[in-house]
This record gives sequence, C-alpha cells and structure tokens, in this order.
Amino acid sequence: MINWRMEEKGFDPERISHVGNKFLTGNGYMGIRGTLPEYEKEQFVAVNLAGIYDQVGDGWREPLNAPNGLYTYVQFEGKQYRLPGGTPLLHTVSLDYRHGVFERTSSWETPKGKLTVTAERFASMREKHLLAMKYCIRCDGEGELLLTSGIDGQVWDINGPHYNEILLQGDEDQVILQAVATTHESKDQVVVCEAYTADFAAAVEPVREDRRILRRLTLQVKAGVQYHIYKYVSVYTSKDTSEYLKQAEHLVRSARDSGYDRLMEQHREEWERLWRISQVTIEGDDQAMEALNYSLYHLHCIAPRHSDHLSIAARGLSGQTYKGAVFWDTEMFMLDFFLFTEPGVAKSLLKYRIDTLEGAKKKAKHYGYQGAFYAWESQEGGYDACSDYNVTDVFTGRQMRTYFKDKQVHISAAIAHGIMRYVNYTGSYDLLAEGGAEVILECARFYYDLLLKRVNREYYELHDVIGPDEYHERVNNNAYTNRMAKFTFDSAVFLLKSLTDLGSQVEERIKRGYDIERLLKQFSDASGKLYVPEPDPVTGVIEQFDGYEKLEDVGIEEVRGRLLHEKEYWGGAYGVATHTKVIKQADVVTMLNLFSKEYREDILLKNWEYYEPRTEHGSSLSACMYAILACKCHMPDRAYPFFMKSALSDISGKGKEWAGLIYIGGTHPASSGGAYMTAVEGFAGLHTEEGMLKATSCLPSHWTRMEFHAICQGRLYRIEVTQKDSQIMDLGELM
Amino acid sequence: MINWRMEEKGFDPERISHVGNKFLTGNGYMGIRGTLPEYEKEQFVAVNLAGIYDQVGDGWREPLNAPNGLYTYVQFEGKQYRLPGGTPLLHTVSLDYRHGVFERTSSWETPKGKLTVTAERFASMREKHLLAMKYCIRCDGEGELLLTSGIDGQVWDINGPHYNEILLQGDEDQVILQAVATTHESKDQVVVCEAYTADFAAAVEPVREDRRILRRLTLQVKAGVQYHIYKYVSVYTSKDTSEYLKQAEHLVRSARDSGYDRLMEQHREEWERLWRISQVTIEGDDQAMEALNYSLYHLHCIAPRHSDHLSIAARGLSGQTYKGAVFWDTEMFMLDFFLFTEPGVAKSLLKYRIDTLEGAKKKAKHYGYQGAFYAWESQEGGYDACSDYNVTDVFTGRQMRTYFKDKQVHISAAIAHGIMRYVNYTGSYDLLAEGGAEVILECARFYYDLLLKRVNREYYELHDVIGPDEYHERVNNNAYTNRMAKFTFDSAVFLLKSLTDLGSQVEERIKRGYDIERLLKQFSDASGKLYVPEPDPVTGVIEQFDGYEKLEDVGIEEVRGRLLHEKEYWGGAYGVATHTKVIKQADVVTMLNLFSKEYREDILLKNWEYYEPRTEHGSSLSACMYAILACKCHMPDRAYPFFMKSALSDISGKGKEWAGLIYIGGTHPASSGGAYMTAVEGFAGLHTEEGMLKATSCLPSHWTRMEFHAICQGRLYRIEVTQKDSQIMDLGELM
Repeated sequence: MINWRMEEKGFDPERISHVGNKFLTGNGYMGIRGTLPEYEKEQFVAVNLAGIYDQVGDGWREPLNAPNGLYTYVQFEGKQYRLPGGTPLLHTVSLDYRHGVFERTSSWETPKGKLTVTAERFASMREKHLLAMKYCIRCDGEGELLLTSGIDGQVWDINGPHYNEILLQGDEDQVILQAVATTHESKDQVVVCEAYTADFAAAVEPVREDRRILRRLTLQVKAGVQYHIYKYVSVYTSKDTSEYLKQAEHLVRSARDSGYDRLMEQHREEWERLWRISQVTIEGDDQAMEALNYSLYHLHCIAPRHSDHLSIAARGLSGQTYKGAVFWDTEMFMLDFFLFTEPGVAKSLLKYRIDTLEGAKKKAKHYGYQGAFYAWESQEGGYDACSDYNVTDVFTGRQMRTYFKDKQVHISAAIAHGIMRYVNYTGSYDLLAEGGAEVILECARFYYDLLLKRVNREYYELHDVIGPDEYHERVNNNAYTNRMAKFTFDSAVFLLKSLTDLGSQVEERIKRGYDIERLLKQFSDASGKLYVPEPDPVTGVIEQFDGYEKLEDVGIEEVRGRLLHEKEYWGGAYGVATHTKVIKQADVVTMLNLFSKEYREDILLKNWEYYEPRTEHGSSLSACMYAILACKCHMPDRAYPFFMKSALSDISGKGKEWAGLIYIGGTHPASSGGAYMTAVEGFAGLHTEEGMLKATSCLPSHWTRMEFHAICQGRLYRIEVTQKDSQIMDLGELM
Repeated sequence: MINWRMEEKGFDPERISHVGNKFLTGNGYMGIRGTLPEYEKEQFVAVNLAGIYDQVGDGWREPLNAPNGLYTYVQFEGKQYRLPGGTPLLHTVSLDYRHGVFERTSSWETPKGKLTVTAERFASMREKHLLAMKYCIRCDGEGELLLTSGIDGQVWDINGPHYNEILLQGDEDQVILQAVATTHESKDQVVVCEAYTADFAAAVEPVREDRRILRRLTLQVKAGVQYHIYKYVSVYTSKDTSEYLKQAEHLVRSARDSGYDRLMEQHREEWERLWRISQVTIEGDDQAMEALNYSLYHLHCIAPRHSDHLSIAARGLSGQTYKGAVFWDTEMFMLDFFLFTEPGVAKSLLKYRIDTLEGAKKKAKHYGYQGAFYAWESQEGGYDACSDYNVTDVFTGRQMRTYFKDKQVHISAAIAHGIMRYVNYTGSYDLLAEGGAEVILECARFYYDLLLKRVNREYYELHDVIGPDEYHERVNNNAYTNRMAKFTFDSAVFLLKSLTDLGSQVEERIKRGYDIERLLKQFSDASGKLYVPEPDPVTGVIEQFDGYEKLEDVGIEEVRGRLLHEKEYWGGAYGVATHTKVIKQADVVTMLNLFSKEYREDILLKNWEYYEPRTEHGSSLSACMYAILACKCHMPDRAYPFFMKSALSDISGKGKEWAGLIYIGGTHPASSGGAYMTAVEGFAGLHTEEGMLKATSCLPSHWTRMEFHAICQGRLYRIEVTQKDSQIMDLGELM
C-alpha cells in the first residue's frame, strides 16, 4: 500500500520551479504553489485564482495571482534564516496528497545552536476562500527572535504587474491585515485578509514595505521550546460577491475563532469524502498506485466545486502559464475523471462552454464563419487569449506567426464531444436543455460553413487546418479534425431528432431559433459526404492528412540531430519536423481512441505501430492516447510505460519548463486525467453499453487487482478487476 | 538621334559580372557574355546554349555552357598581359547594339612601350552556329610575342560540372581544333570547332592543359605594326542534327574560307533587316530611345529563330541563372514584341508550350489534378526545374520550403492567355489547330479541378495559391489568379464553340479526345460562378487576396528597416513583408492591365494609387505593369519613370545579382519586353479593335514623336504618334 506522501529532502535552488508545481495545494478556487513561506516572487510564489484575468498593454492576458497572505520569515540574533539564501543543515518539503497538506522543515546552524522552522499549511477544501498555516520555531539555544509575517503584495506575474494599486491596512493591534488590489483592465478587486494567533507573548510592531503589509513579533526564545503562530488567510474577489470586503474579513475572523486544528479537521474530512469515491487501488504496483492517485489529487485541487459554470485551465491553478486559459484538454482529457467520480464538476466544466457560446459565435464571425468557433485558449466569456504570434524564433528573436488560434478548428468539436459524452454517460438531457443543445447546433453550423467541395468531386473536405499534431500547420483533411466534424454533424442530427425528449420548453426554444428541417437536411448531408481518411487497403494506415505519406520518413533522433539550437521550434513553416513524418503528439491515434468501435482491431494496431515511432510526444496529451489504444489492442504491457509517463508527469518534472524565453512550467492536469482514463477505461476497460456499466480486464501483467468506484446515472458502483475477470457492484443510489 | 553604341571605359573587377550581362551578344542559338577573350570561368565566361540542359547529382538542372572557342591571351617579352590581373593603361569595352558586335580595347605599359590589344566579335545572326572574332595586337616597341588561343573547356557552371568528359583534338598544323564534350545526364554532346587565320608568320606549337586545347604562335613583333588573327568558332549539339560533328567542322572551314569581313557583312545585313521592322524611334528623348532599342537588342539576341518550337529563358542566354528555364515571363512580358514584329518567333514560343503539354499534364497528375499544370520553371519536355526549396535561410543556412512550383497555379493561365493573344492578334487559328486547342482545354480542365465551392455558398473559389506577388504565400482567392482562371474557362468555351472554324480534321480530333457537351457546360458554369474580387464600393480597391486588407499597413522603408540581414528573404512564412501589405510586384495591377476594359478608369487609378506605394518592385516584371496602367489612366508622365526603370534594367545593373549564396545575375528580357509594351501599347496606345490596328497617343510630355512598325494579320504598318494624334500607314502585305 502507499503512504499518500510525497517528499523531497535537501535544497536545490534549481528545483524551485519544479517543487512549486509538484507540491501544489489547492481547492479549485485557488492554487498555492509549493513554495516556502519566506519565498518572494523571484521564487515563483503564486496564490493563483481561478477564472479571473487581467491584461496589461500588449502583454498576454492572464489569470491573477493574489497577494500572498502566507508570507513569513524569521530572524534570529540579527540574522535572517530563509531560503533560497544560505545552506540549511536539513531541509525537507512534503505533501500529504491524501489531504492536501503541505509541510516544510528546515534547520540552520546558528551561533546559538540549531534553529528549526516547520510550517504546515492547506487550502481549505471545506471553505474555498480560506488558507491556513501553522508555523513553528524551535532553537537549541536562547536568543532574540524576530518573526515577520503578513501579506506580500509583490506578486509574481508573467505579463504583469496586474494591480494598478494595492491598498494596505491593518487594525490597531496588527492582528488583522488587509490588502485590496485593483486590476488594470477591469478594475476588479482582489482582497486578502490575514489574521494570526501566537502561543507566546511578543512585542508587535507594524512593518510597511513596498506593496507589503507585515507585522514583526520580537521575543526572547528559550532553548528547546517550540513557538507557534497560526495564520488564517481569506481571499475574495469582487467577482465572487458584492460583499467581498466584508466577507473576507468575516471569514478570517471566524477562522481565527475556530482555530487551526478544527479547520484542519474539516478540511481532511472533505478530502476523505472525495477519496471515498475517487481512490483507485492498485495491487501489485505501489508506484503506479501512488502516481495515479497523486494525479487524481491534482485534479481534485483544481476542480471548480465552488462554481457551477467554471472550467479548468491547461496548467490548472499552478500559475499564469498558458494564460490560465481553458484548452480542449478539459473536455478531452479531464472530463472523464469528473464524469465518473463527481458528475457535478463535469457539468460545471461544460456549463462554462455553454456560457461562453457567445464568445465562440463572435470568434466565428470574426473569421467570416457562421456558428461557434470556440476559443483555442478560452478565458472569461469565451475570449480567445491565443495570439497570432506564440513562438519566438530563436535565431532572429522575432515572433513567429502561428495558426493555433485560427486553424485549430477541432476545438469546437471537442466541446460538442464533451457535451455528448456527458449526455450519453449520464443518460441525462439536463445539459442539453440548459444550453448544450445550442452549443452543438452552433458547432455543427460552424463546421458546415467550413465545408468545401471540390467542384469536380462528390465529397466534402476541410482544408487549411491544424490537427492535434501542431508540427504540421495548415493541412488539408486532417483525419482527426474531419472525423470530429462528422461527429458534430451526427450529434446535431441526433439532437434535432430528439427535440421532443428535451421537453416542450426547450423544443420550442430551439424551434424559434433554428430552421430545424433545413439544418437536419444540411447536417445529414454533411455527415454522409464529409471525407474521412480511411485505412490504406495495403498497410491499414490512416493518413494523418493529405500528403503526409509523401513527407520525409525519418527517425525522431535524426530530426532532433538537425536542431541548430536546443530551444528552436520543431514546427512552423521551417521547423525540423515540419517536412518530415515526425509528429508532436497522438493525432490519428487520438481519433482511433474516440472511434475505436468503427475499426477492426488490426487497424488500430497497425496505426499504433506506425505512428508511435514517429511521435515525439512533445505534448503531455500524447502518451495517454497511446496507452489507451494499446489497451484496446490488448497490449496492457505496452500501454504501461505510456500510462506511467502520464501519471508521473508532475512527479518526474520532465516536462518542458521553458519555451525559448517563455515560462511554460506548471502542472499537467490533462496528463493526470489521461492517466485516470488509461487506468479505468484502459486497464479496467470500464465503459457503458446501452447505459449499463461494463468492465473488461486488461491489467498489466504485474498488477494483481484494481478497485475503484464510479458513479453512473446517479448510482454508485464499486468495480473490482483482477487478471481474470471483473466485477461491478451496485452500491445504490447516491443522495 | 542615338549612336547605337554602349560603351564603358576603365576596368573595375567588381563589374565583371554586370559587364558580362550588359555587353552580351547572341543570336538565339547561343548567348556570349560580354567577357574578354582571356577571361576564364572565374570571370563568368559563358557561351550559353538554348534549350539543352543537364543535371549533376542533386544540383539544379541547368542549361549548358559550351566550351569557349574564343579563348585567347597574349604574352609579351615573357609576361602575360591580360585582365582581370594588373592595371591597364586604358581599357574600353563597347557594344554596337545595332549589329551585335562586341569590342574591347586595352593597353598596357610594357618595358618595350605600350601594348594594345583590340578584339571584335559577333555571334552570327545569319549562321546561328557561328562565332567570329578579329583579334589585333600592336606594340610601340619590338619584342617576342606569344599569342595563345584555342578552346577552353573549363566552362563556368553554377551546378556543374556538366561534362563527364571532353575529347580534345587538333589537326596536324593546329589550324582546326575541336572539343567534343559529353554531358552527365543524357550523354548529349556539344561540339566546338575552332579555326584561325593570321596575317603574319609565326612559329606554331600545340598547348594542352586540363580541358583546354590551344595553340601558341610565337613571333617577333615590330614597333607600331598591327598583327591580326581571325578566329572562327562553330558550335553544335547532338540535339541539333545527327551530323553535328561533321557540320561543325564543315561550318568552321567554310567560315574560314569566307573570311571575317564577309561574315560580318552578312551578319550586319541580318540585323538591319530586323531593325527595319523593330526599331522604335523616339523624338525628344534620346536616352529613352537608346534604352528602349537596347532592350529590343536583347530580345533579338535571344529570339529562337533557328527553331520553330523553342521558347526563351527568364534570363535569356546570359547564363545558367534561374536554370535557363522558361517562366511566365515569356508569354506575359516578351510575347507582344515578337507578335508585333516577328510573329513567327511568337508562334515558336507558343509551340514550345504545345510541345510541353505532356509535361504539364504529368505535373498536374503528380499533384492529383486533371488537366495541364505548366511548369513554373520549364525545361525540355515541360520538366519543372523548380524545386520545393528555393531560398536559403540566411540565419540558419537551411533551405526554406517555397511554394513557387506547387502553388503558383496562374502559370497555366499565362499559357492560355499567350495562345489566345496570338489567336486574337493574328486572327489566325493555326496555333489552335496545331495543338493550342488542346492546351487551352487542358488548362481549363486543370482550373476546373482546382475549383472549390464552400458547401454553404453559391460561388466557386481558388484556395491556397501564390499570385504574382510571391511575398504572400498560400493565399485564397488571389484576384489575378482567379481572373486568369476565369479567362481560361472563357477561352475554352470560345474554343469549344468555334470548333468548326478550326477545320474538320481538328474538330474531329478534339471531339475524339473530349466530351464537348460536358466540358462546355462545366466551363460555362465555372466562368459564371468563379469568384473574382471586386472593387470595394467605398475605396474602389480590389483586395489582392482574402484577408489582405487585414494585414499590417506599413511603408516599404519601415519594412526594409526591420531586416536583420541585408540578404534575408522578404517573403516566406516569417519574412518582413509577409504579414504586411507590402508586395513584391504588381499583382492586382497586372490583372487590371489585362482586363482594363472591364473596369472604369477611376477604378484603375484608385488601384494604381493604392498598390504602387505598397509595391517593393522586387521583380523586374513589376515596373512595366505600373507604367502601362498609368498610361491607361492617361498619366504618361507618371508612367515614364517606371518605363525607364524597365528599359534601363540591363544598363543600370541595379537588379539583384545574388540571392544569398545563389547567383541570380543576368539579363532581364521580361523587363525589356515590358519596356516595349509600355512604349508601343502604353505611350502609343497600340491595340486592335475588331482586328483593326489602332493607336491612341499618350506620349510623355517631353516626347515629340514616336515612329515604329508593327505587323498585323500579315500586313506591315508604320505607326507615327505625336502629342496630338496618331497615324497608322498600311505598308502592304508581308512576303
């Protein structure tokens, strides 16, 4: 069994960024990077907020980091003991990823003996606006200790500073400090209140620094005695409620009254409640069980449970990387975990897309199309944060025109697929009734407007797109994109034929908005005629896009060897991969996963065998697709390394942290979700057949047993899978 | 009046390449660069042959340079006197461009006084396989002179060496030397025979060097006496006749027998015959008259009069630049000169395209299309010498993928346009009957197969092309391309409706090969529905391609200022011009020239005014298009500087000679042809109305009179234009 604990001993300044990701805590409202209380912005401290953004000048629009109410450091006998400066005697950070509790212990040699600082903290899973920290100091000798603590408004920003101003104030006795920060673009406010208690008497004096409000406690410590302070931090924004200032203060006061231990108890209870349903037990492979549940921990940390219409950013709540924007990652790689364990969160993710339909229609219109073209990097309202220039040419320093925003049209199909996945899995039409129907129709209208017919041919085509493999830009008839567009047409046809099942009110609404007969005719025709590349009759291989077969067939290492600069972009017009068959990530293989029932198993296998050696896996979305398809080809042991790569992505820290001069580090929730999908849908073969949950054992050969729960259509099931068979136990209706 | 003489005094080694172009002589079969007799391959010597090519390894396929039978240098009192080494006392090169006679005079200081070498030579316009040179030496003092002369087989190649071997032999008394060179790829043979006479007695000894067969004459010269040798050089290839070896020897012997003066006389007569029809007299502007007639000289030098189915390369016969390939330059920029002055040559140019139809069909098929997709860079058989990689990235040294070959689809329409121009101007259907009909039908079939229809729209589009402006790649609905495709459909419809006029044999041939009814229906439909961008209702501007209007609107100098390297490519995916409105050359303006009758004059003017400041004129095809359209807008004085730029292009030598590491120097016959079109069709307004020749005066304000001839439908006309009016005199039927 596993001990639900991640730990790193020793201090390495090179690992500050990675440790910040690996030891992240969060509760969906905010994510707190695994940084130390004394860290400042140079160490990538972030209290990253979900769903609130700001743009400064021409910089990228990105989410806010709140002022850091956990900021604390010590001074002993006139000298500061804090990292990253100096070398500690001993240093350990750990994460209880069962309960989302981060801890650090560091000891330093002082002239008066060893000084040890321990700090434990959590982002409350019960009260989403609350952080709490227990900070403990102990010294082997006597001496004067200064403990400085408060709110650090010098936040880390990638394209900031996002706060025009920060108002700082404290009450008379310095118990409660407050920072009210106002954003640049929309004048949103972020308020952070901090209160403390201490189990010792000390002289207290206020300390003001630029954008910091702090207090300093001075005391003479005795040898071997532990001194504790407890910090309570509330975070609200003006978008949460009009009473945000009052509520922030109220929350921090009531938390202080409750006390740290009680808050911790409630917090742990919430986590236990989550794990009762979501834990995946693997027998015979502790490393896999640990990596997988650690991945699920990350998904829990970023699940927007405080909202019923919010989604998850591609880097979760680990910072401003990728602009805090929502990508197709959410629908295609994270959705299933929530669908199976917390359908309410799954619905919230999709409601976000319903809410941002207007933004998607606006984007389509901007490019001259009808329907809904969802944002490649979606922020509030569906604003597309993706720019036309996303990559820096390392040779010239110039920005390179990329086509992610305008040509990666498969994003709209991912939304439609997410909604239909929800509908089919839950058996409920609620999401369709609440606006999902319009999303599907508008996505279908978008693809219909994209359809091209060569005048001399009978079929329809989609030209000038980018598929999942971004190394090949502006291609025609990308297999994934075309198949997903066809799926969208089919979904729209299904929907238009099922209108009466959505209730008369919805039916009327749709009939008012759309010419049902015409759309039915158009979408049926489109689905029937849209060309989807088929397996080659000889090789069985599906060509990724028109002309892929004619590209240079050369190994990944050969292509890597052609790099003239380690950070140069592999794709674009002239990248080393561009005119070769080397692809960034699963593309045809992703398509085959989604539509595996339409292909013979030998076709699945042939494509797996063909594309895997040509895939650089330059995206964290790639490995899990190969893992799942390997399971569908009954090759769990070949799936296993890809599964582990996905599950370990935030542990190993092998992902890229820098793209040229741009920081792209952070957590990889899509990879986490992909690991879950591989375990549950791949190795355990969980799927539905006509609404009934089924499992088919396909365990790696060294696994003896898997056990986990899944919710399906309102009922909870326990699934047990061994090498030989699988069992599904109905545990009854959920309350 | 002008003196028909181009001259440069003084020697500048930096100008060797430019002088080689500017003082070119030629007779259509071969071009001889304006290099000195003692020059070797390092000085870009070339006896460039028309229509015969070779490829070595992966290098570019390019035309052959024959071994240089003119090679000659002197040694006096033990020291060589030859350029580019040393500094002459005096040095002059000159060209009688009325008669294609090149002359050089150089004097050196020697210990025995001044030594003067004069050499005069021509490529016979009467006998296309013949070169002749008179070489004269005179010294102020006595001394020993060694005169070395023969054939230099060390030819200049850009992507050579093209000769696997060169067999060298001389007769016993060294009068006739012979080099037989065999090519690499097809084992074609090039034979060069050289014979000499001298007006003095000398000791003769053979000299053999690597790939050179020479003779050395030794004599004691007297002070002040002129010593002459005469050289006769014949050039044949195994593609000319099976008797090429015999004929080469026969020609050189008979030329030696005729003697230099008689050959010169015949040669001059031929030139006078050409000028009788082609000379353009301009009164009031000698510089313009000189530049224009000098341009026509170049067109005469490269006109393939020795063949009835050969075309002209983009750099004429000035070397291997641009692979000696035929571009759209010929049909769009050179054709009219020949059509008006020598229709037989015009027909030969177009017969070349008829002969290469199979190559064009093969190319179309290669890209998955029906019909004829003509080569962007056409060599024999229509082989497309254009590669997928044509530009070197100056920052990485890598080859950049370009799309000239596969996306510049307007080339096929240029052929159709050339044929229809011939048909309409001559009023003769001979070319159609001789295969032109099939060319037009196959070009129309090609465009028909390219047509796209957005399923949701009624009209047809052409996507993913490059128009004349190559700085913007892979655009949709390029105005020029779409209009030219429509022209091709209209031409095919006209043709299909006129089949009976072509004679029953042709009619039957076409009916056997094509489903007339179906094609008529298809092409009529295509012409009617193909979208051609229209003038904006407010600005009158025609958008060059979809989305051009959204590009950054920034000045050319601003764009130039963004260059990080003087030789970097402006176009491609990331060039400085790519995402701006700055274009390489006339694009919409070229379209408006061709179809000016369909637009109101204010529309022509608005587009001229809009696009000219945004045009870099980075191609020699650009200025003349602006000049001609300015005339159509009745602005001859604004046309004038563009006209002069075209006419002076080979005199000023301002054209680019190097593109990165690739030599692109040479003559600019399209620019010459463009200058002619501007003068005759612009300033003199020559055009036909229902088969009748008309002229409309639009002279620049300082021109008082223009006079020239034109052939139309078998009759010769003299055209006189003054500021006030124009007269056309019918001089009767041509023999």
